[in-house]
Amino acid sequence: MLYLVRMDVKLPATLAPAEADAIKAREKAYSQGLQREGRWRHLWRVVGEYANYSVFDVESNDELHTLLSQLPLFPYMQIQVTPLAQHPSAIASAITAN
Amino acid sequence: MLYLVRMDVKLPATLAPAEADAIKAREKAYSQGLQREGRWRHLWRVVGEYANYSVFDVESNDELHTLLSQLPLFPYMQIQVTPLAQHPSAIASAITAN
Amino acid sequence: MLYLVRMDVKLPATLAPAEADAIKAREKAYSQGLQREGRWRHLWRVVGEYANYSVFDVESNDELHTLLSQLPLFPYMQIQVTPLAQHPSAIASAITAN
Amino acid sequence: MLYLVRMDVKLPATLAPAEADAIKAREKAYSQGLQREGRWRHLWRVVGEYANYSVFDVESNDELHTLLSQLPLFPYMQIQVTPLAQHPSAIASAITAN
Amino acid sequence: MLYLVRMDVKLPATLAPAEADAIKAREKAYSQGLQREGRWRHLWRVVGEYANYSVFDVESNDELHTLLSQLPLFPYMQIQVTPLAQHPSAIASAITAN
Amino acid sequence: MLYLVRMDVKLPATLAPAEADAIKAREKAYSQGLQREGRWRHLWRVVGEYANYSVFDVESNDELHTLLSQLPLFPYMQIQVTPLAQHPSAIASAITAN
Amino acid sequence: MLYLVRMDVKLPATLAPAEADAIKAREKAYSQGLQREGRWRHLWRVVGEYANYSVFDVESNDELHTLLSQLPLFPYMQIQVTPLAQHPSAIASAITAN
Amino acid sequence: MLYLVRMDVKLPATLAPAEADAIKAREKAYSQGLQREGRWRHLWRVVGEYANYSVFDVESNDELHTLLSQLPLFPYMQIQVTPLAQHPSAIASAITAN
Amino acid sequence: MLYLVRMDVKLPATLAPAEADAIKAREKAYSQGLQREGRWRHLWRVVGEYANYSVFDVESNDELHTLLSQLPLFPYMQIQVTPLAQHPSAIASAITAN
Amino acid sequence: MLYLVRMDVKLPATLAPAEADAIKAREKAYSQGLQREGRWRHLWRVVGEYANYSVFDVESNDELHTLLSQLPLFPYMQIQVTPLAQHPSAIASAITAN
Repeated sequence: MLYLVRMDVKLPATLAPAEADAIKAREKAYSQGLQREGRWRHLWRVVGEYANYSVFDVESNDELHTLLSQLPLFPYMQIQVTPLAQHPSAIASAITAN
Repeated sequence: MLYLVRMDVKLPATLAPAEADAIKAREKAYSQGLQREGRWRHLWRVVGEYANYSVFDVESNDELHTLLSQLPLFPYMQIQVTPLAQHPSAIASAITAN
Repeated sequence: MLYLVRMDVKLPATLAPAEADAIKAREKAYSQGLQREGRWRHLWRVVGEYANYSVFDVESNDELHTLLSQLPLFPYMQIQVTPLAQHPSAIASAITAN
Repeated sequence: MLYLVRMDVKLPATLAPAEADAIKAREKAYSQGLQREGRWRHLWRVVGEYANYSVFDVESNDELHTLLSQLPLFPYMQIQVTPLAQHPSAIASAITAN
Repeated sequence: MLYLVRMDVKLPATLAPAEADAIKAREKAYSQGLQREGRWRHLWRVVGEYANYSVFDVESNDELHTLLSQLPLFPYMQIQVTPLAQHPSAIASAITAN
Repeated sequence: MLYLVRMDVKLPATLAPAEADAIKAREKAYSQGLQREGRWRHLWRVVGEYANYSVFDVESNDELHTLLSQLPLFPYMQIQVTPLAQHPSAIASAITAN
Repeated sequence: MLYLVRMDVKLPATLAPAEADAIKAREKAYSQGLQREGRWRHLWRVVGEYANYSVFDVESNDELHTLLSQLPLFPYMQIQVTPLAQHPSAIASAITAN
Repeated sequence: MLYLVRMDVKLPATLAPAEADAIKAREKAYSQGLQREGRWRHLWRVVGEYANYSVFDVESNDELHTLLSQLPLFPYMQIQVTPLAQHPSAIASAITAN
Repeated sequence: MLYLVRMDVKLPATLAPAEADAIKAREKAYSQGLQREGRWRHLWRVVGEYANYSVFDVESNDELHTLLSQLPLFPYMQIQVTPLAQHPSAIASAITAN
Repeated sequence: MLYLVRMDVKLPATLAPAEADAIKAREKAYSQGLQREGRWRHLWRVVGEYANYSVFDVESNDELHTLLSQLPLFPYMQIQVTPLAQHPSAIASAITAN
């Protein structure tokens, strides 16, 4: 089951650079783990912004919230979730892998 | 080169149902042709709305505009385009096929 | 799996009253069928507006879109869907019946 | 009498983690007390956000404001209240328990 | 129990002037009846707009929705309701008559 | 002459609690003085928010600005003013006392 | 007493050109009469838009609403009113003529 | 003197196609005349929208409004004007030709 | 050439009161100098807000930006500029003095 | 391939003036280098704001994001990107140099 997710990162000015770097490193490792599992299906940078559009493939709303709330950058992000469904003109399936 | 595109369809109340059906049929054929060519990479329905999120893979801004402006439903859609780039944490490439 | 859904109805001025009444009657029957099945869990009127907030309990994004797009008033509604998850302070479960 | 309430939590960066934890613990206890009394009827997490949608069942606007303004997290929340009424197609009552 | 209500009137261009006048006359009579009963406590014109701010004093959300949805101009209005409570610095009561 | 005024209070996190309490005490005294004079005609709490809707009865725009800018909480408030006029269906006068 | 007023004109497509011209001629005569009286102090076109910013000098909110609601284009305009006051750094008076 | 202008075209559904084509032909001729004179310096299509961003080089606000209000599509466009100035880091001049 | 300018002042909580007073004194002197020269034609307080609407009469976009960017409060203001033109119904000229 | 980019700069109050000056100097040098290469085609100041509108001419979305994210002021800017295409009425080409 697919969801489009937009994440905008806003690091507070008071965050020490070393701490910020450590959080970003954990974020990258966490993200790549989920990508390898196939649950974080797509991850794209929004041109010109410290933001991404992602597509997640999970079993439920709860699984998605759990994944997102465990993001190391979660306290510093504004996240917007849009549930997706099969489009009648799509030749690929939105339910199983595409 | 990837672009996220959101399309919201608003058919005018004055459009005859038969004409609407004909336009939708042409839209579906046109869309599936582009999907088979790989230029319309993803097509998802937004849950609860007469709208879709799509990902296009084209060579240039001009190619994308040409594809979109030739959509049979183009006169009845509101379209919003977001250019995408490679995300440093993505394990797939946003430039070639992913 | 729960979703909060807001529906705003906007009937076009050109819709004949008899036709509007027929659509509303079908809408009511359809809605009450889903309520009896337990899939349309809550249905509340927004005070002062021709709008409702509803909670749906379905298996997937696709099931929800199918239910919503078959609403007789669907062509005349603006719909906004918010996926819900279990809240850590909730004493009831958001996943099974509550 | 039912109200839909959305609460968005924004903890200031200057709040010490220990103090934040203490406030959240008091918030949880307070919330669960009201849930057990039946006045905080539903509590759902918004997927991907530090926010909830809730339904309150109280006697008056004043009772609702008193409950909300006594939330331990109240100084750190943005709250939006929507009064609800009985929907003519609802098979459950919005006035007494549903 | 008090509610602030803003009503914006938008008459469709297709409404015949005579019919519009008849609706407005019924609206005025209906409004003045409620004002005399004390349930429509205040009615003010927003300067420069075909809109009003009103204060209603009713027993419940349902009573307010019933009053508003029976307005002859209801199909042509956009209505926004804000529930009000006693302010701790107010010298008048927001609950009983003020 | 009446004006609807909405005030939203946002105290900065850096304001010491004792100083905040002192400002609020002065605000209350100042507000009650104006209420007794009849210039601050209504003062209502917005349910769930640190905000109020008020109605002022003053001689001029300048008098209103002077009153508002002398509020002890003025530096911490966002204020929105809507001038009101007599509504043709109102049975009370918006110009003299109502 | 001064007010800044923005007016956006939106003529419906169904308005016959001859009727539109007649309304605009009445609007011009009415506007110039008020300008000569000194009550419509300034009238400027917003560059690129069928809109104006104006400054009115009137005795009260009610006088302003009466002037605006008698504009021949009133049914086709969206109007936004901002009350103005004397600025402490202004060398001209905002209360008497400036 | 440069201005950035965004124009969004919205043709009413009631406009006959032949008339629309005639207006567009006049628009194109008019636009190309101004481009050749150097007053309409840039004209770009917004990808996916029936809209453009343009840069005009004119002597005054009034000259710009005259040019824009004489556009054959002016009655069907929403136009937004942003005045531009020389940027201190720009190596080209924003005042004379660039 | 006239421009309507809205300025909203937001002083940071960290600005020392003495420094704020010094900046405001310089702002007042600078503003009154421009008013005397006739380039800052009108300066009005927005009722209830730490904001003003002003009208500037300058030779060019660049002259206006230079004036505005040299305001002592410029780093603490949000500024919005609207270019104005002669209105066909205005009896005064928007180009020369009015 | 052209893109319109709007950049709004918001320097945090905690940034030391000397550091801010150093960042701005690097920004200017970086910007002028890209202008000389022809990749930063236009750079205009928005009148009255600490903001610019720019036009970039690059080979791809990724090249644009790389350029923008290396701006010394990037952490302090809000950036909005609009892809541009050839307009059918433009006499200049949007694809090659114009």
